[in-house]
Amino acid sequence: MRASRFFISTLKEAPSDAEIVSHKLMMRAGMIKRLGSGIYTYMPLGLRVIRKVEAIIREEMNKAGGIELLMPLVQPAELWQETGRWDKMGPELLRLKDRHGRDFALQPTSEEVVTDVVRSEIKSYRQLPLNFYHIQTKFRDERRPRFGLMRGREFTMKDAYSFDRDVEGMQASYQTMFDAYVKIFSRFGLKFRAVAADNGAIGGTGSHEFHVIASTGEDALVYCPTSDYAANMEAAEAPALIAARGAATQELTKVSTPKTTKCEDVAKLLGIELSQTVKSIALTVENKDEHGVVSSKENWLLLLRGDHELNEVKVSKVPGLKDFRFASEGEILEAYGSKPGYLGPINTKQPVKIVADRTVANMADFVCGANEEEYHLTGANWGRDVAEPLVADLRNVVEGDASPDGKGVLAIERGIEVGHVFQLGTAYSAAMNCVYLDEKGQPAPMQMGCYGIGVTRILGAAIEQNFDDKGIIWPDAIAPFELVLCPMGYDRSELVKAETDRLYAELQAAGIDVIVDDRGLRPGAMFADWELVGVPHRVVIGERGLKEGNLEYQGRRDAEASAVPAADMVAFVKGKLGK
Amino acid sequence: MRASRFFISTLKEAPSDAEIVSHKLMMRAGMIKRLGSGIYTYMPLGLRVIRKVEAIIREEMNKAGGIELLMPLVQPAELWQETGRWDKMGPELLRLKDRHGRDFALQPTSEEVVTDVVRSEIKSYRQLPLNFYHIQTKFRDERRPRFGLMRGREFTMKDAYSFDRDVEGMQASYQTMFDAYVKIFSRFGLKFRAVAADNGAIGGTGSHEFHVIASTGEDALVYCPTSDYAANMEAAEAPALIAARGAATQELTKVSTPKTTKCEDVAKLLGIELSQTVKSIALTVENKDEHGVVSSKENWLLLLRGDHELNEVKVSKVPGLKDFRFASEGEILEAYGSKPGYLGPINTKQPVKIVADRTVANMADFVCGANEEEYHLTGANWGRDVAEPLVADLRNVVEGDASPDGKGVLAIERGIEVGHVFQLGTAYSAAMNCVYLDEKGQPAPMQMGCYGIGVTRILGAAIEQNFDDKGIIWPDAIAPFELVLCPMGYDRSELVKAETDRLYAELQAAGIDVIVDDRGLRPGAMFADWELVGVPHRVVIGERGLKEGNLEYQGRRDAEASAVPAADMVAFVKGKLGK
Repeated sequence: MRASRFFISTLKEAPSDAEIVSHKLMMRAGMIKRLGSGIYTYMPLGLRVIRKVEAIIREEMNKAGGIELLMPLVQPAELWQETGRWDKMGPELLRLKDRHGRDFALQPTSEEVVTDVVRSEIKSYRQLPLNFYHIQTKFRDERRPRFGLMRGREFTMKDAYSFDRDVEGMQASYQTMFDAYVKIFSRFGLKFRAVAADNGAIGGTGSHEFHVIASTGEDALVYCPTSDYAANMEAAEAPALIAARGAATQELTKVSTPKTTKCEDVAKLLGIELSQTVKSIALTVENKDEHGVVSSKENWLLLLRGDHELNEVKVSKVPGLKDFRFASEGEILEAYGSKPGYLGPINTKQPVKIVADRTVANMADFVCGANEEEYHLTGANWGRDVAEPLVADLRNVVEGDASPDGKGVLAIERGIEVGHVFQLGTAYSAAMNCVYLDEKGQPAPMQMGCYGIGVTRILGAAIEQNFDDKGIIWPDAIAPFELVLCPMGYDRSELVKAETDRLYAELQAAGIDVIVDDRGLRPGAMFADWELVGVPHRVVIGERGLKEGNLEYQGRRDAEASAVPAADMVAFVKGKLGK
Repeated sequence: MRASRFFISTLKEAPSDAEIVSHKLMMRAGMIKRLGSGIYTYMPLGLRVIRKVEAIIREEMNKAGGIELLMPLVQPAELWQETGRWDKMGPELLRLKDRHGRDFALQPTSEEVVTDVVRSEIKSYRQLPLNFYHIQTKFRDERRPRFGLMRGREFTMKDAYSFDRDVEGMQASYQTMFDAYVKIFSRFGLKFRAVAADNGAIGGTGSHEFHVIASTGEDALVYCPTSDYAANMEAAEAPALIAARGAATQELTKVSTPKTTKCEDVAKLLGIELSQTVKSIALTVENKDEHGVVSSKENWLLLLRGDHELNEVKVSKVPGLKDFRFASEGEILEAYGSKPGYLGPINTKQPVKIVADRTVANMADFVCGANEEEYHLTGANWGRDVAEPLVADLRNVVEGDASPDGKGVLAIERGIEVGHVFQLGTAYSAAMNCVYLDEKGQPAPMQMGCYGIGVTRILGAAIEQNFDDKGIIWPDAIAPFELVLCPMGYDRSELVKAETDRLYAELQAAGIDVIVDDRGLRPGAMFADWELVGVPHRVVIGERGLKEGNLEYQGRRDAEASAVPAADMVAFVKGKLGK
């Protein structure tokens, strides 16, 4: 490619609405252009990266037995009504009507359509397993789109759907996709981690997220450096930090704690360790009759050690707490007889169901609220002062917790979710009557899996992981160009022009994706453009060097350029690119 | 590709709603699957063809200096309001609201968005010319979607937009695109014709349509076999078929023509040639005041020779007739004093503006209606019986008409429009203030062109041109596979399996897009599938032939197979494919 025939448009400053580094750099490098909130035109440079990402995904999906098709963006409501998602999905599902008033959705994913295709095409166990995928535009009407391609409304996703005869088959298909994802993210040249994920509302038997590691990532990833344990924060199991409960040694004592509502302040006031305090979190569960009217309410109290954080996904898995909400101040006053900040499990005004985190359940002589404003209790003990609680894992793990596999201690790093594999089971096939006839001619619902990669999100994540103060640093495999040739005086020096043209032709013949900057910019502006754009390899062709037979090579992460004999440059670059 | 790892699903019968052959065959071959009215899933076989079509378009667009980007499908109403198309476009433009109630359109084309990109990116004449294109999903909410991919609602289009400093530049960009289109359609391997088209409402200076030739085509293409003149029916200029008007030889005579309203019947009744009769077509033009209320009406009468057909596009170009409509029966009675079927230019009840087609203007002693029920006039003559009319080209050309370039006579064939190139001028750039600064620093609107190819429509058009009673016959360049290997007993005969695997590997290594049918079907079912799908080349591997060292080759259009030595087959196939 010649830069004079391409479109490059860089900016000194990012627009003010760009909050994170990847968004800022993509805007400054002219890779994307905002059309509306969460809607971007992929400019020529950005599109080149997208195409490379798509090509790698496509190759590995095909190798793993995936079959590509293309399902429409505009999908009839009827299919979404069959699975109930038409009602279940909120305003994120963009709905529209055609000229005849019929309802449609812009697809956020394609479970319904692919299941519709398969139920009409597949009759027999002999036709299974099957894995259909497409790389298609998606739309999610996010309440607050932001971060550029990271949380857009219109975006590109690869979504694959496997169909199997039984659970074992589904698990095999899932493993095949998991392995393909490892290859895909490895080929991107990104540091990534696959973590076990919570299966959410769908249930099923397994789910993993693939995260690009980045200190700016929204998600906390939990892993064990000495084993292969890895999970996201929602799914990482927290151990009890006290092996067994000690005997009570203190009397239950009410102490004055004026204007002291936080565990940290209580510990400081009383001169004790924060780990001796217990935090109380009041919940309400509403029981509803068949008309959806609230018929009764239950009070629940969660207890966490003062230095721990609540994990709401774990709470929702406690039997009875699926639809919990935090209690209002009025409800708290009514149930506990005290304002928040002084709650505890002892002497509640109304009956309260108490759930203690595993660690709290093993504490003795602990400090908690007295259910009386400006008072706490010290020396509280299970069994003696209050009935034994329900026990559950309620907290986020912290660094240093024992790994659930017993093979070390946990560490935490930040990540950006770019892929998700999911064992769906029969959630969709049963709702849509997607069945096959087994060996005995009996109908059985297919076992499904679904597998997504956020194609356009990869760009943002790659940049969050790879940038410096000059701009983006693309990995070779997904860079818009692998190499840029920067001639010093292409339009002035015959020598430079001839060498540039020779090298350009040879590099192209060697299968290297090269751009030559023939725009006639000053060297400073030229270098700044390509450092901002993030092309990973650069060769400068200058008269002075050429007179000694040399060119200058500089990798995007290199502090300095190095002289390379002009005759060796193609081989040198091929070596750098591993070609 | 191995068929066992691919998805092939053929049908004996086409669904009943498939009206034309390409729709029927695509459904039967399992290339597309209906999701809703005018909305199709592109199944794996269909998608392969689409990808090949796209790849050829992309290569030639890039060679011609086009720069690829990708503009969003969901586009804010504000841009469409700037050009007025938000109001001008009818229900074909699918509109929707996001969760905040903001208006958007699903793009049917992208003039507004590309002009918005360019007006914010381009400042100087130095940055022009520029040609941006994308290959993107489009949506048009057709009133009556039908014919499969031929008139769908969701479809894929390549649309390109050129931006130039002046008209000369625009014309050069236009010519470059025209030439690229010729290369693209040639590479598809389709018989096609580029015809001059009417510029429609936009005006501008030039427009051509690219049609795939097919006897089932909706459009009539006019061309001169002995010159390069070609136009669509709307744009093809019709000559006067009488060089000069003869002298009047008959008296004007009123003759009784009971229940005879059509020219054919009048000619038969009077025993004269149809070419001596004149057909009268009554129009109404409404003049409206500034509030859009009709303030007055004009009567217009068009006169065509009895054997000619009206061309409405030509009518709308007659000064004063831009917004014509056909007169109602009530309006006709009022203006002419007679029912339709007996109208004519002589003795109208009210004043009528008369426009004669070029041929009619040179007729003498002609027959026309008497403006009295059941009577016609014979021996009518211009000047003597009625004032000289306005003269215009009003009719469709017919085969044998003189070519407007004077280099022969016209022929007519049928075509399917698959591409359109258009000189837009400043229609969009002026409305959207898309300007550049010229050499003197003065702002000037850019001169634009737009260039579309209906990617998915190509599939339908290619089939309408290339099929037989067995199925589709794809041209090599866009076939889903170039070659199918049909082993006779892949799972039974070691000899067949070994030779099939060897040949498959060698063909792949030779860069041939080959599929091997390892599904274990009976020969008849296997051959029928591939003839229906339309793979253009087939090699059969059988034990009997192999014992003599032979394989069987058959081209999709060949009546019979021919034996080819197994050792020569790769070279033979390469020869057939011109590789």
